[in-house]
Amino acid sequence: MSARKERTSARRTRRGARQKASFAQLPRQKVINSFKPLEIISEDQIEAIHNASMEILENIGIKVRHPEARDILKKAGQKVDTDTEIVYFDRDFVMEAISHAPSEFTLHAPNPDCNLEIGGRNLVFSMVASTPNATDMDNGRRTGNQKDFRNFLRLAQSLNVIGTCGGYPVEPVDIHASIRHLECGRDFATLTEKVPYIYSLGRDRNLDGIEMARIARGISHEQMLKEPSIFTIINSNSPLMLDTPMLEGIMEMARHGQVVVLTPFTLAGAMSPVTLAGALAQQNAEALAGLSLAQTVRPGTPVMYGGFTSNVDMKSGAPAFGTPEYAKATIATGQLIRRYNLPFRSSNVNASNVADAQAAYESEMSLWSLVMGGANFVKHAAGWLEGGLSASFEKVIMDVEMIQMMIEMMKPIDTSPESLGLDAMREAGHGGHFFGTQHTQDRYETAFYTPILSDWRNYESWAEAGSPDALKRANTIFKTILADYEQPAHDPARMEELNEFVDKRIAAGGVKTDF
Amino acid sequence: MSARKERTSARRTRRGARQKASFAQLPRQKVINSFKPLEIISEDQIEAIHNASMEILENIGIKVRHPEARDILKKAGQKVDTDTEIVYFDRDFVMEAISHAPSEFTLHAPNPDCNLEIGGRNLVFSMVASTPNATDMDNGRRTGNQKDFRNFLRLAQSLNVIGTCGGYPVEPVDIHASIRHLECGRDFATLTEKVPYIYSLGRDRNLDGIEMARIARGISHEQMLKEPSIFTIINSNSPLMLDTPMLEGIMEMARHGQVVVLTPFTLAGAMSPVTLAGALAQQNAEALAGLSLAQTVRPGTPVMYGGFTSNVDMKSGAPAFGTPEYAKATIATGQLIRRYNLPFRSSNVNASNVADAQAAYESEMSLWSLVMGGANFVKHAAGWLEGGLSASFEKVIMDVEMIQMMIEMMKPIDTSPESLGLDAMREAGHGGHFFGTQHTQDRYETAFYTPILSDWRNYESWAEAGSPDALKRANTIFKTILADYEQPAHDPARMEELNEFVDKRIAAGGVKTDF
Repeated sequence: MSARKERTSARRTRRGARQKASFAQLPRQKVINSFKPLEIISEDQIEAIHNASMEILENIGIKVRHPEARDILKKAGQKVDTDTEIVYFDRDFVMEAISHAPSEFTLHAPNPDCNLEIGGRNLVFSMVASTPNATDMDNGRRTGNQKDFRNFLRLAQSLNVIGTCGGYPVEPVDIHASIRHLECGRDFATLTEKVPYIYSLGRDRNLDGIEMARIARGISHEQMLKEPSIFTIINSNSPLMLDTPMLEGIMEMARHGQVVVLTPFTLAGAMSPVTLAGALAQQNAEALAGLSLAQTVRPGTPVMYGGFTSNVDMKSGAPAFGTPEYAKATIATGQLIRRYNLPFRSSNVNASNVADAQAAYESEMSLWSLVMGGANFVKHAAGWLEGGLSASFEKVIMDVEMIQMMIEMMKPIDTSPESLGLDAMREAGHGGHFFGTQHTQDRYETAFYTPILSDWRNYESWAEAGSPDALKRANTIFKTILADYEQPAHDPARMEELNEFVDKRIAAGGVKTDF
Repeated sequence: MSARKERTSARRTRRGARQKASFAQLPRQKVINSFKPLEIISEDQIEAIHNASMEILENIGIKVRHPEARDILKKAGQKVDTDTEIVYFDRDFVMEAISHAPSEFTLHAPNPDCNLEIGGRNLVFSMVASTPNATDMDNGRRTGNQKDFRNFLRLAQSLNVIGTCGGYPVEPVDIHASIRHLECGRDFATLTEKVPYIYSLGRDRNLDGIEMARIARGISHEQMLKEPSIFTIINSNSPLMLDTPMLEGIMEMARHGQVVVLTPFTLAGAMSPVTLAGALAQQNAEALAGLSLAQTVRPGTPVMYGGFTSNVDMKSGAPAFGTPEYAKATIATGQLIRRYNLPFRSSNVNASNVADAQAAYESEMSLWSLVMGGANFVKHAAGWLEGGLSASFEKVIMDVEMIQMMIEMMKPIDTSPESLGLDAMREAGHGGHFFGTQHTQDRYETAFYTPILSDWRNYESWAEAGSPDALKRANTIFKTILADYEQPAHDPARMEELNEFVDKRIAAGGVKTDF
């Protein structure tokens, strides 16, 4: 084991996941994006898209499919057509409402070491979520189930650069839908120490999720109201519609001071105009509509604006991800969101059916554009395949490597006189080498990023080892991590209370599933 | 065939390579990088690196292993130590010399449609070069040979986003070294219409290359002197040394007004300090030394500054590429080069042994950093594997896909009222769809990038087709392109003159190979 690995392992034991030295990853850390956000559209173009979205809100309106939500908006002075369920949002109301949203906040985890800083220049990566299938090289592609679900949670707990999960990494359909959120919430609180997530599939689930998050942290309802400890994604039913469970999610999470991430699913050419400008204008209208409702329910409630605009394959109608259009939309979305001073949620996505070169280059298009675009929270950062239809164990490892490389790239360059190293050049001499210089000896252990997956052996050594490609190596690595996984130590009283709550709710039949 | 492909094919027939419709690529085009260059170091840090490099030039000096070159520099007032061969460059001399270099120029090709605009916001991609091995899925890895060399030239000719080759894509070692540059020059002028390259391996080769380039363009020596029509790479022998053939290359190319690309091979931890700042300071000193010699020989001669700083794997000493350090060095190099107003040469590199996910993510690290860093000319843009020890036919296709995606990403976003598409939203209605709207129908053929390699079929269709991963699909594509390849029509008189020249030089025994 190299000296560098030893050091990293030691640090990990203190600060990160309890893991064996067989896997030398970056330590748990807060990631600050040091780059000035990239601009792909001009100030005038930002205003053109903003104004188009305001026109959409005022003149075309948003269909709000929940009477309570319409009442709240009506009382706030918005024009509501009860027959069509369309609410016409006034632009001054929208801008005033979202001005109350915090630009930065902390998402609190059961283990405070796993708290997430959201907004500003912070950058948080979260696991793939909501896929119907799991896949790995050994067992192939199969329908989501609790065993795979739990293994993805174990990876999420073990991987230091993965802040949390943004939903079930894979949907465990072997658990009945009425109690799935309860069993999964329990699994999550047992197998990880990180910030929980709740799907907005009806008010009761949101309330159960909030209560489980509170119990896992061992805090009072009052403290919970002040400290966001769970989050949900609200996808508008693009175009220009918010449905009943999504609206209940907005209202319940806002009432409890928990985090609403409003992400329109604006696929250009399908659920939004075929043009990027049109898709972005519609995305903006939908996001601001939902977020202004959240801020009306409880001014100052923590929220994020999610950008998910991509395009479809016009030959098949299938969604495409990690495309040039996706990258452009991501960068432009960052510019729009900064206009409103809101935290920016993005995603690491691709449309490949296998964790191959396509999966990697589409993911890099996503990752680079979201880093350049100044995103704060990355859903689906590790493991997503097939446009979200599969969670891949091997892809988790590839993505973590790509994420670690991005994190390392954002570290500043030291240009101190010692770093400039003129004495080392004198020591090496013209045509000499630097391996043996004191300057190198003092620094070689920490000078460069050590990869977890990349194989830099020469061709002959690599061929002798059986020519393992990145997919094969990732397969070995994820299994090593699972074998090394140790369940975190939780407060026994909190776990007892959580189990009691979950058992009681399951005994009562869970939640309705018929809407 | 989709309507979009038809359109693209038609355009290609007119403007790009003559190719069958089986492969729908982007048309031949000048690429303008629309992004403001990214900054990774401050103005003060740029000055710190600049000043360190000036101190290196003045006080440590550069070993210049050619008496003629030392004489030129001595006559220009530089301090020369004849015993050690070290030249101490005065900073005012260096800055004055390089101020004569043009910031933009045209590299002229035998077919003017293939001219390359170098510098400014232009971005040109060129083929992998100088690898000792070729590889593909069918025949595996083999020593470079003329057959593979010619097939890579055919790909370079057929692929519209590939501006030219920056050297032999693979070294054809079955041609004797004394006549290799002649046979390869003839092959290049026969199989492509693009700008030729000559290795700086002794004065005679440079002169042969320049003459072949002149004949292939059918122009006079006088016109040739005014119109750069061939280029060479000069790698300093880092640290801080320029050897005999490289110095002859600088002098001969400059005398003839042809393009010198000065690229120090500063691998941090091996041939340069282990710190990025040290490696960059040394790179800067070496590049500016060579470039100031070129400008002294002939003020105003066209040059580029090449950034190739990367790091080694400190465990094995092997070069690593596409690393976080490589990306940082690339972005910082762009900042340095813009200080001197010179064109910036970079590379698309990786260290993978196979065209897998690692090859793709390391390449994307290279491509994104060089695009963000404002590079002008990209060597090794397509086909490089194994840190440059293999040229891969499949990787060419993967890289062309990645390059096309970058090009598409740089196209501006249209935010005109028509593009914002509010009428389409009214037509689609709340919760409706956009496939059938007039707005979509008017635009769907051209709205999005059509990939050449990415597979967006659903999992079931893809599995039914045999689950081909990106490597397998790239294999099919490169063979299709080779099967469809048609040799360009050349001026018969020029070809006759070229053949006469090459045959005569070969009959005379070619060049000396014993230095």
